[in-house]
Amino acid sequence: MADPRFFHTAPPKPLAELAEIAEATLAPGTDPGRLIEDIATLEAAGAAHISFLGNRKYVPAFQASKAGACLVEPALADKAPSGMAILLCAKPRRGFARIATAFHPELAADSGIHPSAVIDPSAEIGPGCRIEAHVVIGPGVTIAAGTRIGANSVIERGVSLGENCIIGANVTLSYCLIGDRVLIAAGAVIGNTGFGYDLDPSGRVKVPHLGRVLIGDDVEIGANATVDRGSGPDTVIGRGTVIDNLVMIAHNVQIGEGCIIAAQNGIAGSARLGNYVTFAGQVGVANHAKVGDGVVAAGQTGITNDVESGAIVGGTPAMPIREWRRLVGMQRLMLKKRQVNKDNGE
Amino acid sequence: MADPRFFHTAPPKPLAELAEIAEATLAPGTDPGRLIEDIATLEAAGAAHISFLGNRKYVPAFQASKAGACLVEPALADKAPSGMAILLCAKPRRGFARIATAFHPELAADSGIHPSAVIDPSAEIGPGCRIEAHVVIGPGVTIAAGTRIGANSVIERGVSLGENCIIGANVTLSYCLIGDRVLIAAGAVIGNTGFGYDLDPSGRVKVPHLGRVLIGDDVEIGANATVDRGSGPDTVIGRGTVIDNLVMIAHNVQIGEGCIIAAQNGIAGSARLGNYVTFAGQVGVANHAKVGDGVVAAGQTGITNDVESGAIVGGTPAMPIREWRRLVGMQRLMLKKRQVNKDNGE
Amino acid sequence: MADPRFFHTAPPKPLAELAEIAEATLAPGTDPGRLIEDIATLEAAGAAHISFLGNRKYVPAFQASKAGACLVEPALADKAPSGMAILLCAKPRRGFARIATAFHPELAADSGIHPSAVIDPSAEIGPGCRIEAHVVIGPGVTIAAGTRIGANSVIERGVSLGENCIIGANVTLSYCLIGDRVLIAAGAVIGNTGFGYDLDPSGRVKVPHLGRVLIGDDVEIGANATVDRGSGPDTVIGRGTVIDNLVMIAHNVQIGEGCIIAAQNGIAGSARLGNYVTFAGQVGVANHAKVGDGVVAAGQTGITNDVESGAIVGGTPAMPIREWRRLVGMQRLMLKKRQVNKDNGE
Repeated sequence: MADPRFFHTAPPKPLAELAEIAEATLAPGTDPGRLIEDIATLEAAGAAHISFLGNRKYVPAFQASKAGACLVEPALADKAPSGMAILLCAKPRRGFARIATAFHPELAADSGIHPSAVIDPSAEIGPGCRIEAHVVIGPGVTIAAGTRIGANSVIERGVSLGENCIIGANVTLSYCLIGDRVLIAAGAVIGNTGFGYDLDPSGRVKVPHLGRVLIGDDVEIGANATVDRGSGPDTVIGRGTVIDNLVMIAHNVQIGEGCIIAAQNGIAGSARLGNYVTFAGQVGVANHAKVGDGVVAAGQTGITNDVESGAIVGGTPAMPIREWRRLVGMQRLMLKKRQVNKDNGE
Repeated sequence: MADPRFFHTAPPKPLAELAEIAEATLAPGTDPGRLIEDIATLEAAGAAHISFLGNRKYVPAFQASKAGACLVEPALADKAPSGMAILLCAKPRRGFARIATAFHPELAADSGIHPSAVIDPSAEIGPGCRIEAHVVIGPGVTIAAGTRIGANSVIERGVSLGENCIIGANVTLSYCLIGDRVLIAAGAVIGNTGFGYDLDPSGRVKVPHLGRVLIGDDVEIGANATVDRGSGPDTVIGRGTVIDNLVMIAHNVQIGEGCIIAAQNGIAGSARLGNYVTFAGQVGVANHAKVGDGVVAAGQTGITNDVESGAIVGGTPAMPIREWRRLVGMQRLMLKKRQVNKDNGE
Repeated sequence: MADPRFFHTAPPKPLAELAEIAEATLAPGTDPGRLIEDIATLEAAGAAHISFLGNRKYVPAFQASKAGACLVEPALADKAPSGMAILLCAKPRRGFARIATAFHPELAADSGIHPSAVIDPSAEIGPGCRIEAHVVIGPGVTIAAGTRIGANSVIERGVSLGENCIIGANVTLSYCLIGDRVLIAAGAVIGNTGFGYDLDPSGRVKVPHLGRVLIGDDVEIGANATVDRGSGPDTVIGRGTVIDNLVMIAHNVQIGEGCIIAAQNGIAGSARLGNYVTFAGQVGVANHAKVGDGVVAAGQTGITNDVESGAIVGGTPAMPIREWRRLVGMQRLMLKKRQVNKDNGE
């Protein structure tokens, strides 16, 4: 069902192969050779499709589904409608993502350097790279094997990119060292000078930013996001961290591994995030704040002070999410009481 | 008064023609042949200019104005200073916008394909299109008649654009089907992969995004805004919706017709907005939230749950705007009381 | 210690020269000819480095530092460890920024116009300009001496740039007049049409935006920021104002001189900011709001009404920061009391 203008669809696959891809096991009595043609949602699937049950609340949709096959947690398998082939799977959503990728692999783009690209003779470009039209690559840049640079992107002097990175269109990279398998989406700007000045009534002196941006392996950075370089220390984004669109990471920020930073977050200068931090959208972190490992923040949270590892926070200024919810509850109660008092003529 | 470096000014027009353009009628006794040279504000206008009275609070400026002509609601026409030609008009602001456009039409840009553009031979480009310098157009792209693509923009594989669209400079379009008369401003990124992962301690599996972005006729999208494609379902933006700069529309979001989404809004994954929704700046909508028709949200509102059609909301988490105002009032009162208590030594 | 792939390091300099650069004086008995090789932080510095003590709280680091030389306020000079050369300086941070720049000057980029740039024959480009690869420059553009335009940027019809500006890569400039020494970072979009419509059930009429963007001398605008042009009046950014990444400045906004606008601020249509205003990140200003001189706003402040000169504000809607802090304190107290009541079984 994926639009063929945009996506490739692989040939049908037998259930046995799909089970292997999804790290699932076929329920007893299932025909391992049965062919499945594509993925689909529970609602849209027909006899040739495989779907998944990711959450107990979708059991009714599961029971009504016409899917030929379905990934299910063992505990819910007995709810299956008759005739549906069941793949038992500890993590159905994860298994489904893998099967979806197997049915719709990204086709390898042709490697090569488009003749309109402008590449400094001192730049080193590894084998199997794809450099698209009108890309501009400065002196001393090194790009390792298999990396793709989207059309109209600009890679400035000295930048280093690891293997098998995918850089989108209209991206600007400067003053940065980037690991392997990094994905940087269209329009992102990495390595800009930080926002640092010494100001007084006699005028402004700009603080020179002599640091870099260090981006670990498997990092993903969203469209039109910006990551400034450090002022002396580096700005650091740890391995496996994913950053959504329109996020601002300021100078000297250090972000650990495996973090999830949703859209429109703003992390101010010299703030530090531990590992496996998860921020919903539009969160702000004040400069120099330290956020511990595994911290979770609700959308629009304003983190003005340090946050201990493992805390779940919300509100501005940030507080434990339970307190924030109680505060919201109290406010509602006060509004109700006041209304009652008014109604009573008080 | 428009700067001729940027804007064309048409020749003077008689009042009769201006009345027709504005859907206005000349007040009795007005010379329909009187020539007006340009638009101006009430304050800046002289005898050769036409202005408008959009709001009762500007009556003093209206009475002091030296404008030769003015668009006025009939109910306020008797406040006019003597000598001013009056055009009676139910919607003076709307009429003025039409007259402004008539005096300063955007001149048709030359059509044609700049020789530096890189266009895949399989792309189809309709008659009267303008493809500017260094544009890159991928395989299978279709662009209908009269559409303009700004310099250095990138249109990736399979994208379809309707008639008379205007795409700004440095735009990136991928995985999207776009209607007629759509305006996408400079730097916008449409069709990026959504921010969807299955995560656990063993690592991250990326959810493949096999959907598209569907953009209806007459939609406008602002500078450096980002719209991600769907994960399977499509991301949909309904006919006539306008989206301001730096807005984030996540994967699978569905936005109805005629909505107004101001700058820096963030609409998270799978959220749904009805028709004629109006959001002020920096609003956030949580994933899967459903916002009904005609909902209005104040700036910085955080919508975490479903909102009924017709509601006007503010605050985080969002509440009816009247409650939010009462809450703000109560907080002010509490602050005052506490100060009084402190002053009394309590 | 600056990475030579990105930064040039000047030869060693004697203390006498560094004192002059920093507007400092050598403490009695200091050898003016002692050579210093580079800057460093107090912690990282060795005998060949100069550092600075910017804040009383770093006195312990200062006393433990192995820096060969240090910029210090006179009042703290007696805390210096023995052997460290002391430069007495009223503003050590400012002096250090100047020395850092002297050790790591930005090397002059070669001037010239890259052959891949597409420049309208009517454009005027002054001496000593650098126009990088794939830049597109429209008709009637004027660029004064010494200005640099980064790769893949687009300068549209009629735009005027002053002397010694630095425009980053992938920037889009239209409908704007820009002063001298202005810095516009990668991906910024200046001069887009404002977000102004006249709407009613019969449809939408777009308000034509016939104004410009006027940018004063020494202004800096961050990566992927957007500044819309005026609707008739101009959008104005005063001399020396600095604007961070991903900021939105809407149509008709007027910003005074010397303001500091941190990342992800959104300033809505026709708002006015005085001189020397300082906004932390993610602040929003409602349309038509007037903000006086010297106003300071905390992060995420929502300014919905006029703010008097000199006020320091926080919260949404904005209130004096002291009230906002008291409000936060009261809320914490209420939460605690309620918890106590609950614990007591009430």
